[in-house]
Amino acid sequence: MALLDDDRLFPADAAGRKIARALYDSVKPLPIVSPHGHTEPRWFAENQPFPDPAQLIVVPDHYIFRMLVSQGIGLAELGVPSADGAPVETDGRKIWRRFAEHYHLFRGTPTRLWLDDTFQNLFGLDVRLSADTAYHYYDHIAEMLTLEEFRPRALYERFGVEVIATTESALDDLAHHRAIRDSGWPGRVITTYRPDAVTDPDVAGFAENLKALGDITGCDTGSFAGYLEAHRRRRAFFREHGATATDHGHPTARTANLSGDAAAALYDRIKDGSGTAEERELFRAQMLTEMAKFSVEDGMVMQLHVGSWRSHSDRIFKSFGRDRGFDIPQPTNYVAGLKPLLDVCGLEKDFTLIVFTLDETVQSRELAPLAGVYPCLKLGPPWWFFDAPEGMMRFRQAVTETAGFYNTAGFNDDTRAFCSIPARHDVARRVDSAYLAGLVTTGRLDEDEAFEVAHDLTYRLAKQAYRL
Amino acid sequence: MALLDDDRLFPADAAGRKIARALYDSVKPLPIVSPHGHTEPRWFAENQPFPDPAQLIVVPDHYIFRMLVSQGIGLAELGVPSADGAPVETDGRKIWRRFAEHYHLFRGTPTRLWLDDTFQNLFGLDVRLSADTAYHYYDHIAEMLTLEEFRPRALYERFGVEVIATTESALDDLAHHRAIRDSGWPGRVITTYRPDAVTDPDVAGFAENLKALGDITGCDTGSFAGYLEAHRRRRAFFREHGATATDHGHPTARTANLSGDAAAALYDRIKDGSGTAEERELFRAQMLTEMAKFSVEDGMVMQLHVGSWRSHSDRIFKSFGRDRGFDIPQPTNYVAGLKPLLDVCGLEKDFTLIVFTLDETVQSRELAPLAGVYPCLKLGPPWWFFDAPEGMMRFRQAVTETAGFYNTAGFNDDTRAFCSIPARHDVARRVDSAYLAGLVTTGRLDEDEAFEVAHDLTYRLAKQAYRL
Amino acid sequence: MALLDDDRLFPADAAGRKIARALYDSVKPLPIVSPHGHTEPRWFAENQPFPDPAQLIVVPDHYIFRMLVSQGIGLAELGVPSADGAPVETDGRKIWRRFAEHYHLFRGTPTRLWLDDTFQNLFGLDVRLSADTAYHYYDHIAEMLTLEEFRPRALYERFGVEVIATTESALDDLAHHRAIRDSGWPGRVITTYRPDAVTDPDVAGFAENLKALGDITGCDTGSFAGYLEAHRRRRAFFREHGATATDHGHPTARTANLSGDAAAALYDRIKDGSGTAEERELFRAQMLTEMAKFSVEDGMVMQLHVGSWRSHSDRIFKSFGRDRGFDIPQPTNYVAGLKPLLDVCGLEKDFTLIVFTLDETVQSRELAPLAGVYPCLKLGPPWWFFDAPEGMMRFRQAVTETAGFYNTAGFNDDTRAFCSIPARHDVARRVDSAYLAGLVTTGRLDEDEAFEVAHDLTYRLAKQAYRL
Repeated sequence: MALLDDDRLFPADAAGRKIARALYDSVKPLPIVSPHGHTEPRWFAENQPFPDPAQLIVVPDHYIFRMLVSQGIGLAELGVPSADGAPVETDGRKIWRRFAEHYHLFRGTPTRLWLDDTFQNLFGLDVRLSADTAYHYYDHIAEMLTLEEFRPRALYERFGVEVIATTESALDDLAHHRAIRDSGWPGRVITTYRPDAVTDPDVAGFAENLKALGDITGCDTGSFAGYLEAHRRRRAFFREHGATATDHGHPTARTANLSGDAAAALYDRIKDGSGTAEERELFRAQMLTEMAKFSVEDGMVMQLHVGSWRSHSDRIFKSFGRDRGFDIPQPTNYVAGLKPLLDVCGLEKDFTLIVFTLDETVQSRELAPLAGVYPCLKLGPPWWFFDAPEGMMRFRQAVTETAGFYNTAGFNDDTRAFCSIPARHDVARRVDSAYLAGLVTTGRLDEDEAFEVAHDLTYRLAKQAYRL
Repeated sequence: MALLDDDRLFPADAAGRKIARALYDSVKPLPIVSPHGHTEPRWFAENQPFPDPAQLIVVPDHYIFRMLVSQGIGLAELGVPSADGAPVETDGRKIWRRFAEHYHLFRGTPTRLWLDDTFQNLFGLDVRLSADTAYHYYDHIAEMLTLEEFRPRALYERFGVEVIATTESALDDLAHHRAIRDSGWPGRVITTYRPDAVTDPDVAGFAENLKALGDITGCDTGSFAGYLEAHRRRRAFFREHGATATDHGHPTARTANLSGDAAAALYDRIKDGSGTAEERELFRAQMLTEMAKFSVEDGMVMQLHVGSWRSHSDRIFKSFGRDRGFDIPQPTNYVAGLKPLLDVCGLEKDFTLIVFTLDETVQSRELAPLAGVYPCLKLGPPWWFFDAPEGMMRFRQAVTETAGFYNTAGFNDDTRAFCSIPARHDVARRVDSAYLAGLVTTGRLDEDEAFEVAHDLTYRLAKQAYRL
Repeated sequence: MALLDDDRLFPADAAGRKIARALYDSVKPLPIVSPHGHTEPRWFAENQPFPDPAQLIVVPDHYIFRMLVSQGIGLAELGVPSADGAPVETDGRKIWRRFAEHYHLFRGTPTRLWLDDTFQNLFGLDVRLSADTAYHYYDHIAEMLTLEEFRPRALYERFGVEVIATTESALDDLAHHRAIRDSGWPGRVITTYRPDAVTDPDVAGFAENLKALGDITGCDTGSFAGYLEAHRRRRAFFREHGATATDHGHPTARTANLSGDAAAALYDRIKDGSGTAEERELFRAQMLTEMAKFSVEDGMVMQLHVGSWRSHSDRIFKSFGRDRGFDIPQPTNYVAGLKPLLDVCGLEKDFTLIVFTLDETVQSRELAPLAGVYPCLKLGPPWWFFDAPEGMMRFRQAVTETAGFYNTAGFNDDTRAFCSIPARHDVARRVDSAYLAGLVTTGRLDEDEAFEVAHDLTYRLAKQAYRL
């Protein structure tokens, strides 16, 4: 029995399905370009076997554990590490069994699609996961993980990855990236400059982080000028380790364009981690514009991920810390938010700003109109809760008529779940093929053009947008 | 001629239609579970014949009269009771004729589907309603309403209702529910605790209502402690009359978590119906959290219906009062709004909070992410203007990928239009079958799973969520 | 080779496609009613040949040049007139060639549909536009533009226009409309009263505009009473030139209902173009209600186009001025915004207010519920970025279930791109046919009713709503 339908995600009508299949077949063999994600460079540097199936698949994947939590299972029962030192489950078989018992919860979700794809195509499983098959799955996967061909570098090659970007803090020493480069292994694993820890005064340890930034760069981060110079040097250091892009995770899309003096004075007020909430938000806003100016200068592509209320549950945050599935989207305004930055850098032809959203309502109302006219703007693919067939289809339906295809930035998987990467790209390729097939069958696109666009969406646009 | 297409609401493609039909056929015979609505317990207590067709179908149904009003027909012409004593039409035949003349206005609306279903399946009519057939309809329906088998209890049985919940004010004496129970009739008609009249300081007569609450319960509602104790007793009284749930209709989703002292002080400022607008809103917010804490204590399921600007037209409110079709949805924020309540009760495993929205934009952005992680949260079905095929389909498409099926609460009809109940449940069953069929034909769900989910959505989830 | 698919925009399933085609065939021959747009009355008054292809098709069309700008081409390179006197490209062949080279950018956009329709059906072209065919296109179109049958009046007739409305400032002398009327040509080109220049204190030259308004009308615009009387006279003057409607372009949907004294005092504070931002916004708000009251008095239909952040880029505004493709939609609230106006005029049966939105989220949440009950309200068709197949389909899906078809106002093209008018109406007729066919195949509308509704949406509703 197959876990997957070969024609999954294609249109239901015969004509559309036929065209979608042909489009998909034309892009299926293309390499994976993964310009933004959260895999660990250590994997590729050390190339050690992955741990047990639960630690590989369940414990680190917030899509999985949040759904189980929503049905009353505790994070501790799933082995998610606690922040307060309370004990959590460590028996991989028990964790896996709990997950398997509740596999029906994932019906209709992208997680189910990604997992079944991984189970079938990576691990060769052919019965559905359930309480009954839990240990069969566990033992089978555990055994495969001991094999040489399931080590990180082998998987990178098996997955057909051409390039993969990881994301590191501005304070990271990039030792793993250096180790990968020095190892002679031909895989292309590059870093991304993520400076939130030193641009967001609300991050825990902000003042210490600024001091560390000064120490690393030899700059005086006691002054705004020294602080900016420190960024300049770190950006150069990241570029030496392959980075072509920066990434910024902010609560809102607000940007600012203060005078140099005003920005320096603001920095003095927040640099020790104090300042009012408004000053801290204004500093974040100003730093986005500073980052855009750096990008104009050094050519790094800028990514903006905004709109999440992080760690919404106080109790979970206290017991388990960050990134525990309790990050909830908020309404976001890009039109007012981005204006100060766009007034400074928006018409720069060599500047690229890729914007992501967790507020779907802005796609047709704000993002497509903005990206459809500002030369610097590109639309990132559906992100997080929207990286799923319905979300992806709504994205194309919402933005294409105003921004076309060529103001979008291709797909990125944005994941730390390494095994799911082929499945995620496969879903994107299928949905785009289905969307294009729909345009063809309804006379909105010629078939020869659809093949060209399918190739662009799968491969060329990501390489171009991220300068890879 | 049939008024209804047997395959209505199923997918247009042959494969999808076939699967949808099979799914629908499997759930069509299931009993109706109606866990939230506004039918009158008096009907079942007294079991008297319904009045004339206009009084049964047109006059009480705001979906119908609002559409007629939008095209220039006055509420008075439709027999809607006035608040200012001005005379209104009382001739049922005239009201019915006005309605029939404008039946084309309902093309493409759920009202049309519900009505045609009622006309064909309940009353056996087989010509389309129009000016020409108005009196034929009127006389035919009027005659049937005189028959024994069209009395409330007979219809309850004919409709296959297993349980139906009504909604009563906290001040209601529940005499009808007692009468139903004492009558020996086996139908299950239960009440729901709706305390808005004593939790919302903006309700007319709030101070008098608090006094009445004290009188009924023997509690001193002059103090916050006595007021809370009065709620506790009323909740117990409602549970004795079958209630398993409470319901709260608020303008916004705002909740609060004040200290006991601060809450008591706030109560003192608003208990006579005064206080600033902000204080009144804050009191409503605080009371939602108090109600959640009661639910943790006594196990009643909490329902939250928010986001309507009630009685938008001043003139209509003055002349005709509340519930006259001029209630208009507003943007609503659940992420900030619900946080205080969720910080108190959100992780309680035995607490259930069912949330409804009139702002579709929050479904994928806020509600699915919240319900997809908080154990207490369940998503209510599409409500009011969204209880319609397109609205229902958008709901599934918006929430399933993030919250799955098992964080939704099944269907509820939320209606006072008793005759439309089978039609409303039928529409829900058809749309869910169509949605599931689409998942099957696009390889996102296996067929055996679709049958199980169809059963859950139709029957099991409502019983489970409402503890019926 | 045909550029267009005869079945474009029809449903993919065979049954739906067949019905859609039949519906479309029934409305295809109907005349074009264009009740709102921005063609120039001068064209019809003077009936001179249109200039070269670039000046006709590329330079004035913000849909086209904004997409080219988004990919790094400068407005100057496209011949868009500058505001600062900087030179811009004047060679039509060069402009056309730049456009043709980038024609792939329009894949999947309505611009592509409109252009291909114009190229095939108006100019008889049968190869796709590209760099290779650029000059072939240019020379062919240029030659046709010299022909008598491509002059404005001939095109009006060829397009089957029954009536077309232009839009003029309150200060316009309507000389071209007079000339058209005096010419004896039977085409019906009517004006529309657009008073923004004298109702919006943020318009450049506002104080001078008020003075001009006084001079034209012989009223003392130094006082609010005189100012209102001036409007009254200008409205009458516009009606003499065929106007049946007014149009108002505001940043928000805010209305106000100040007392006469308060409004007069406010006028005194803003009439010289000063006042605070809040006062200026309040004046705009008050003037919408004043205009509604005038409409009740004189029967002119009122149109409201709101929600655009005009000239979002400061640099572009400085260099090129207004209407350069940098107008970006904003979130808009109609429920609170329109309430003051609706409390005054909302129940007037002979008053019509047609509302347009650039914020799709309000369609199901606010506009359909409002239009589904207030007798004065009608929903304008999808506007601007949403005048496209997906936007149109989402509109019907969002509003029909609550507001039905008969609270919508038919189609209007709202364009200054004269040649695209038949294509735009054709797209609307096809999408409506597709939507109706979907209702028929899913048993939500009987086929005979679908034909009647198709006719209404194409022809009758626009005539009725605009009193044409």
